[in-house]
Amino acid sequence: MLGIRSTNASKSSTRVLRRCFSQSHIYYKSNKDATGIVFMNMGGPSTVEETHDFLYQLFADNDLIPINKRFQPLIAKYIAKFRTPKIEQQYREIGGGSPIRKWSEYQSTRVCKILDEISPETKPHYPYVAFRYAKPLTDETYQKMLDDGVTRAVALTQYQQFSYSTTGSSINELWRQVKKLDPNRSIVWSTIDRWPTNKGLVDAFATNITKKLKEFPEEIRDKVIILFSSHSLPMDVVNTGDAYPAEVASTVNQIMTKLKFKNPYRLTWQSQVGPKPWLGAQTLAISQFLSGMDRTKVPGICFVPVSFTTDHIETLHEVDIGMIQESDNRDILKRCDSLNGSELLISGMAEMVKNHLKSGQLYSKQLPLDYLLGKSSDPANLEQLFGDHRKIKS
Amino acid sequence: MLGIRSTNASKSSTRVLRRCFSQSHIYYKSNKDATGIVFMNMGGPSTVEETHDFLYQLFADNDLIPINKRFQPLIAKYIAKFRTPKIEQQYREIGGGSPIRKWSEYQSTRVCKILDEISPETKPHYPYVAFRYAKPLTDETYQKMLDDGVTRAVALTQYQQFSYSTTGSSINELWRQVKKLDPNRSIVWSTIDRWPTNKGLVDAFATNITKKLKEFPEEIRDKVIILFSSHSLPMDVVNTGDAYPAEVASTVNQIMTKLKFKNPYRLTWQSQVGPKPWLGAQTLAISQFLSGMDRTKVPGICFVPVSFTTDHIETLHEVDIGMIQESDNRDILKRCDSLNGSELLISGMAEMVKNHLKSGQLYSKQLPLDYLLGKSSDPANLEQLFGDHRKIKS
Repeated sequence: MLGIRSTNASKSSTRVLRRCFSQSHIYYKSNKDATGIVFMNMGGPSTVEETHDFLYQLFADNDLIPINKRFQPLIAKYIAKFRTPKIEQQYREIGGGSPIRKWSEYQSTRVCKILDEISPETKPHYPYVAFRYAKPLTDETYQKMLDDGVTRAVALTQYQQFSYSTTGSSINELWRQVKKLDPNRSIVWSTIDRWPTNKGLVDAFATNITKKLKEFPEEIRDKVIILFSSHSLPMDVVNTGDAYPAEVASTVNQIMTKLKFKNPYRLTWQSQVGPKPWLGAQTLAISQFLSGMDRTKVPGICFVPVSFTTDHIETLHEVDIGMIQESDNRDILKRCDSLNGSELLISGMAEMVKNHLKSGQLYSKQLPLDYLLGKSSDPANLEQLFGDHRKIKS
Repeated sequence: MLGIRSTNASKSSTRVLRRCFSQSHIYYKSNKDATGIVFMNMGGPSTVEETHDFLYQLFADNDLIPINKRFQPLIAKYIAKFRTPKIEQQYREIGGGSPIRKWSEYQSTRVCKILDEISPETKPHYPYVAFRYAKPLTDETYQKMLDDGVTRAVALTQYQQFSYSTTGSSINELWRQVKKLDPNRSIVWSTIDRWPTNKGLVDAFATNITKKLKEFPEEIRDKVIILFSSHSLPMDVVNTGDAYPAEVASTVNQIMTKLKFKNPYRLTWQSQVGPKPWLGAQTLAISQFLSGMDRTKVPGICFVPVSFTTDHIETLHEVDIGMIQESDNRDILKRCDSLNGSELLISGMAEMVKNHLKSGQLYSKQLPLDYLLGKSSDPANLEQLFGDHRKIKS
């Protein structure tokens, strides 16, 4: 299984008194300590059987669905039970489970391998995955990191664009596990909480789009509409001032700049559920509207899943089956490949982590503002979570 | 008055047969023909007395407010009459009128002066302003251009980010006036329909923000929240797939990149009216929420009007009076100056027009898609409006 490196790090025996740090800087005094690189994501059930537990965890997340906390476990249990058969069927239709874990483990392992080369002063780097709703959950991963002798860790969100309901929820969960599993703070944490315009990310998307456009006939290729599709947010989250919509648009703008704006494009939003208003325009509605038009006006549409780095049920089922396979106009609809194992993405992420470790930054300048605006009944204390808070043994 | 250059151009006598053009290219065979640079904008009443007519034009615009066309003039008349006293009072409070015309004429004149130098092959360049709801309206400006002997014109939107309800509405009105005033097509039109990440625009905003931040005490300067504020859109326009929200976010991202993300920032939306849902978060709500917090968390807020290039009632009244002057926390609230006469902006625009004229592009790759998605009862025919459609006299 990935997520375990081949040798165990030396335990905390090599730790030295390292109090010479400011609130915003961490200094490395020993390279025998292991650096954990933790990919955080919502996750997905790797097998059909894990679907129920995944749904339960999701609906029980008060940061994602801020309802009455006392009744939430009961409501989550009811909704999970009710929705499981339908969602299980969707996972069956995409091959028996979500590939998120596989790709997350692959990406994190590759990133750590590169880091060992380009950032020798912080090696060894150990890859981990901590999912919010699927295995491995944060507590399981944290315990593993402690067992592995990790003394310094980067919580790296796999959501390139920050939302309080995604990355924020993962950080809040991390804080709960720190308090529970690591009260003496043997791991010093920092976070990369967003990276919407990372060069590797942008290059990887541009490359995959260019490749997919080549599957359209040359004479219409420049007229194909690039339909960027991002997971939507309820308007009541958007209206808190959540950073996400603008950060997604930044990614799109950088990709289109790289592509020299040679195609028409639009940013749309998918995966709305429930009766509340969500941010639009909806990908499916726009896709249906445009693909039904005269072919001289709309000769093709290329979907681009712009807010995830790996395949997931929203690409493999919602887009590939729901928007393409089931469309009467499927002959002009294609989806750009997800980044998955893209070396452009992976080297971009490795470079970013290297720079992060070198800078000593604990979190972005935006994160405290995200926490002022975000709604949570149990938010992380950023100053307590990040930085060096080790209890020095006398 | 600006908008008139000092000498009249030679009339159409120098026009030569120029049919050697493709749909997307225009060739200049004579530099005796004048090039008109037309700044398009919604405009604003230059004097308090013009307020009623401005409001009437605004509420009568079926592209902006798509209600039953038959009753719209009557409804517009009623709403304009009803709202005039309140809005007149607002214009009185900001000095007796909107400065949009003054600044638009200044900017367009400066742009043309620079163009005469950097683009001699298309000179002379004559500056014009065509407002959608205030004087000078498109028809008045068009007639002037014909009288001035303009044979080639660029419809340059002053809205740096495209919305079908703003730039789209101006283009639709231009098309109506072309059909009415210039059926023989003595003017060849092209358009610059968006420029959200223009370098001069971004540099000008970054410069003005840096300048305003210097008014905050040095020890808190990097903690001041930059609150970008953009005119909002009704969600039913957003949900059509309007390009505007993502393009505004692109501008913001470029400015923050230029500022090296050294402050926390957020993109918010202002000027919502009526009972329908609009795109949020609302600037006022976020500003009130944040400015009421502990000063160690929010030591200051700097508003940045990011979707206009000149001052207008939304900056001078809605922000300066409504959000700052009337706030209990006005001591920590400041607004970044509007671009108005910024030479960075003006040279960026001149460079953009030069490149546009040189490229022979008629409109952006996005505009046809905007027109597929936009809702109008009387939309422009882009292929008929832009390019060379002159009726050659035998």
